Amino acid sequence: MTELSPNRLLDAINSPDDLKGRSRAELKQIAQEVREEVIDVVSVTGGHLGSGLGVVELTVAIHAVFDAPDDKLIFDVGHQCYPHKILTGRRDRMRSLRQGGGLSGFTKRDESEYDPFGAAHASTSISAGFGFAKARDLQGKDNDVICVIGDGAMTAGMAYEAMNNAGADKSRLIVILNDNDMSIAPPVGAMSNYLSKLVSSRPYRGLRKIAKKMVSPMGLESPARRAEEYLRGFAMGGTMFEELGFYYIGPIDGHDLDTLIPILENVKAMREGPILIHAVTQKGKGYSHAEKSADKYHGVSKFSVITGEQAKAKPKAPAYQKVFGQTLTKLAETDPKICTITAAMPSGTSTDIFEKSFPERSFDVGIAEQHAVTFAAGLAADGMRPFCAIYSTFLQRGYDQVVHDVAIQRLPVRFAIDRAGLVGADGPTHAGSFDIGFMGALPGMVCMAAADEAELARMVVTAAQIDDRPSAFRYPRGEGTGVAIPDMLLPLEIGKGRILREGTTIALLSYGTRLQEALKAAEMLSAQGLSVTVADARFAKPLDTDLVERLAKNHEVLITLEEGSTGGFGSFVLEHLARVGALDRGLRIRPMTLPDEFQNHDTPDAMYEEAGLTARHIAARAIEALGRGDLAEIDRLARA
Amino acid sequence: MTELSPNRLLDAINSPDDLKGRSRAELKQIAQEVREEVIDVVSVTGGHLGSGLGVVELTVAIHAVFDAPDDKLIFDVGHQCYPHKILTGRRDRMRSLRQGGGLSGFTKRDESEYDPFGAAHASTSISAGFGFAKARDLQGKDNDVICVIGDGAMTAGMAYEAMNNAGADKSRLIVILNDNDMSIAPPVGAMSNYLSKLVSSRPYRGLRKIAKKMVSPMGLESPARRAEEYLRGFAMGGTMFEELGFYYIGPIDGHDLDTLIPILENVKAMREGPILIHAVTQKGKGYSHAEKSADKYHGVSKFSVITGEQAKAKPKAPAYQKVFGQTLTKLAETDPKICTITAAMPSGTSTDIFEKSFPERSFDVGIAEQHAVTFAAGLAADGMRPFCAIYSTFLQRGYDQVVHDVAIQRLPVRFAIDRAGLVGADGPTHAGSFDIGFMGALPGMVCMAAADEAELARMVVTAAQIDDRPSAFRYPRGEGTGVAIPDMLLPLEIGKGRILREGTTIALLSYGTRLQEALKAAEMLSAQGLSVTVADARFAKPLDTDLVERLAKNHEVLITLEEGSTGGFGSFVLEHLARVGALDRGLRIRPMTLPDEFQNHDTPDAMYEEAGLTARHIAARAIEALGRGDLAEIDRLARA
Repeated sequence: MTELSPNRLLDAINSPDDLKGRSRAELKQIAQEVREEVIDVVSVTGGHLGSGLGVVELTVAIHAVFDAPDDKLIFDVGHQCYPHKILTGRRDRMRSLRQGGGLSGFTKRDESEYDPFGAAHASTSISAGFGFAKARDLQGKDNDVICVIGDGAMTAGMAYEAMNNAGADKSRLIVILNDNDMSIAPPVGAMSNYLSKLVSSRPYRGLRKIAKKMVSPMGLESPARRAEEYLRGFAMGGTMFEELGFYYIGPIDGHDLDTLIPILENVKAMREGPILIHAVTQKGKGYSHAEKSADKYHGVSKFSVITGEQAKAKPKAPAYQKVFGQTLTKLAETDPKICTITAAMPSGTSTDIFEKSFPERSFDVGIAEQHAVTFAAGLAADGMRPFCAIYSTFLQRGYDQVVHDVAIQRLPVRFAIDRAGLVGADGPTHAGSFDIGFMGALPGMVCMAAADEAELARMVVTAAQIDDRPSAFRYPRGEGTGVAIPDMLLPLEIGKGRILREGTTIALLSYGTRLQEALKAAEMLSAQGLSVTVADARFAKPLDTDLVERLAKNHEVLITLEEGSTGGFGSFVLEHLARVGALDRGLRIRPMTLPDEFQNHDTPDAMYEEAGLTARHIAARAIEALGRGDLAEIDRLARA
Repeated sequence: MTELSPNRLLDAINSPDDLKGRSRAELKQIAQEVREEVIDVVSVTGGHLGSGLGVVELTVAIHAVFDAPDDKLIFDVGHQCYPHKILTGRRDRMRSLRQGGGLSGFTKRDESEYDPFGAAHASTSISAGFGFAKARDLQGKDNDVICVIGDGAMTAGMAYEAMNNAGADKSRLIVILNDNDMSIAPPVGAMSNYLSKLVSSRPYRGLRKIAKKMVSPMGLESPARRAEEYLRGFAMGGTMFEELGFYYIGPIDGHDLDTLIPILENVKAMREGPILIHAVTQKGKGYSHAEKSADKYHGVSKFSVITGEQAKAKPKAPAYQKVFGQTLTKLAETDPKICTITAAMPSGTSTDIFEKSFPERSFDVGIAEQHAVTFAAGLAADGMRPFCAIYSTFLQRGYDQVVHDVAIQRLPVRFAIDRAGLVGADGPTHAGSFDIGFMGALPGMVCMAAADEAELARMVVTAAQIDDRPSAFRYPRGEGTGVAIPDMLLPLEIGKGRILREGTTIALLSYGTRLQEALKAAEMLSAQGLSVTVADARFAKPLDTDLVERLAKNHEVLITLEEGSTGGFGSFVLEHLARVGALDRGLRIRPMTLPDEFQNHDTPDAMYEEAGLTARHIAARAIEALGRGDLAEIDRLARA
């Protein structure tokens, strides 16, 4: 667990082929070595620990039995893929995990042929796997497709849609339900209860023999099998998965290679129909600190392997999430109509803070963003004040519901759009890049972005008062800027921005958190003798058209700033100015947005640098637009 | 069915209160009169017929037993709500259905207090209903919440997410599963098979007595009830709904008031937990032409009540949908990798044309857009060429999957975005307003819009050849322009537009179908002595930057045109021009988009007029931008 020993078995495993023909004892040792390697790696890099530890044996068994990359192994979410990466030729790069230029913390197609499908959002694997299965059949190929999906991911409608489709089809598809009774938070809902019932109805450890018999190579069609199936259905009270058309095997012990390997071998020999293997695993398995922790060390920073202690940097300022949770909780003390909705992210979004005070008004609906949004719409339609807290990237899952159930009906649902903008190590799948555009396009929506945590607190108060239409406020991941949050929080005037410093030549109009960089850029530009205005738009919708028109009229250069894609705030400003003729006589206007590419994971600073959204970039852009000044000088100042 | 008789019972029903205290015989007569009224109304207005006829008795029974509007009745999709509208004070306005200024073809909150939640997209009712249920509990109210959802809508993950959440909760909620074994097309998938099994396992007509006994007021808690429940579970092999936490009652005859009313009365008396009533109905019930028709007269135009013959206007040109289906089918004859995916809209999207020739390569996945998109991504990842045909408004349901599973992985899924732009009688819930922006924001996506059906055919060919990244092409509902479609279809050059007429003063740059209006506007402007260029951008992404810059440079006025919201094509043009400094010295540029409001249903022409996107509006906007010319003259010409 400390130094790598050169004569360990794992050193000889450069691809899954090297697992073939190994004795059961060797495979067990390899599994143990993989586990130690995962712990060692994550102690250095940080990342997802508990989920990987839970699937060590499963991953070894799959790679021992199946033939990747011909057989397609698709991990749902992908944060449990570290053992898989170790076994598929990426062991020497594991310590670059989640670092700039290094391995992704998820599966990724362009990283390895052993990653046939990338992931990071939950519940996509069965859909993708069914696509691979049909493509195989249509092309006359013969490979297997294996999807590994957690019980938490099973709460999402998408998984159900895929099962509904695949279960009515004869195509061969293997789904392994990795049931650890945990996603990031404990899963909620009826499916979770149902799985618990299955697991508790018979002690699964005692079922090994039965399970092995069930998947004996005698095939599915024999009368004996049919009778057995009938009996099984009776004993279990029928299983939902069989009713959905899957041949159900389980529950089995997902940490026991003596169970896993024969079952997978028999399943491989079956050559037919959709099959679901229900494997019971333990998140954090084999690392006592993780096993004992409430979140099973789901996502961790660097830690000491011996003590399990995580090296958390002391935060300089409260996180935006905390400010959201605390402000809303305070408001709810005098407003019984306020309630919160989260889709399986109570801790990530800080609705857990609210829940401690108001459990009956706090709803965790599971990984179910579509339902979350329309459920909130229902609450609003009957007079409540729901705050629906969802990460920007996951709100994409509920977009139609935002349009159809909230915006068209003009229902006052409040969207707390968390993780807006770049997110660092989680990379492009988690970036909140598109919400400014896709929310701002909706008639009647109020769209705000917080420049700092005090602004966020005021936006929470503002949204609480908007009872006649939907509203949304976006804020980034992580630490605030350290500004004081006033005790007395006044709501903002809807559709009004603010000016932070007044100048005459260059106007920097920021929407959201790039405001700090705009202020720094203004300093740089001032040092060049340029007079700079810095404004915070606060609202992308309704746009502060007075402010925008004034800035356009009174400055030579207008730069818009946002942490979002094209088609967002800068576009709204441009469209407005064009419509009123404010571009007719010329305006050196430059929209600065995220680049038109999916940026790979890196440190946030490196990502802003790559995106061209730092103070230096802003100042340089202003100078360029002005057509004079000294870019080299700006650069020198910026680096000084 | 012809003239309304003044002494019919229905004439005395002005609200559900008027159903209270009626004898069973009277209620049966009222149901029959409602049925006749629905047939009579739709024969005049056109609209949704079959689904409404299927729920006549259900609607009468619900309103006889429950107390709307205090009790909340939520119809899923809402196209089956005509009987409900007749019974809730809107009978005198039924002949204005789907006409401009008239009643909506769906439930709509601002139309009546009896419509607590609007709908038009499927599968939202349980989520919304659960929101109403929790809002009721939190506010200490005591009303019932009744959701009526079809078996087709049950294929959507959203319904499952809602059941998963509500089923694990104790809140009182009544879900009526209206099982007619049809949505628009026959439902597909394992859930549909499962429901059929439930219905066929025991002849439900013989079950009336049992059903009545089951819901006798002795309550759920008695030992006798428990035994009965157990026995029922055994007899039925357990039901999926009970495993999801719902108390299941059924299947029952949804057309028999003698069954429905006692069961609803008993369910009303239960005062607890989530309950699912499985009612079997017949779509088109009571109108022989509908019953016999394959689609059960789902959506019809005006028709003769006697013959059932629909007054379909002879189309002047093939519909865009047909052109898509036929072109793709032709391509597939020589390309075995092409396949199609539809989410329960084989006829609406014309993938049924493809399916006739290539059934094994055509996939109807059910009402399951999330799955549809990622399934297509899986197909593409294994080398197929999937065309995923989804209406613009429904693609909103799969947006995260487009981002996460397709665009980030740069997989060559082809999105055929049907019903893009305004759609007429179906109104705001079906308008395809936002796709230009939400697709165009995605890095690597190729975005096209067809100006006519020949262009659409070429875009199909173009998309088929784009193997290195995702692509999308949008086209409107309905008839094309009548242009000839060449036998030899050449692919378009990616990112290149075309110029249709050259001028010097005004440039009209259209994206999609407003091109015809642009050409007409050019004629009007020419008549004023103005020199006009008309260009078809073809691509919103990659943008034809050469063309855009040339138009900007060589004209005094540049107008962009699109049938989409703000943040779309016009924004991309503006952002590009701003970035390259092409606005620095002034450009009279005017983006013309859909207005920033949800437009109510009307005729397409009236909607374009309201949107300000007709030739006359375009010409007037050009004149205004130019700051000269005679607006009144343009207006006169346009109306001549």
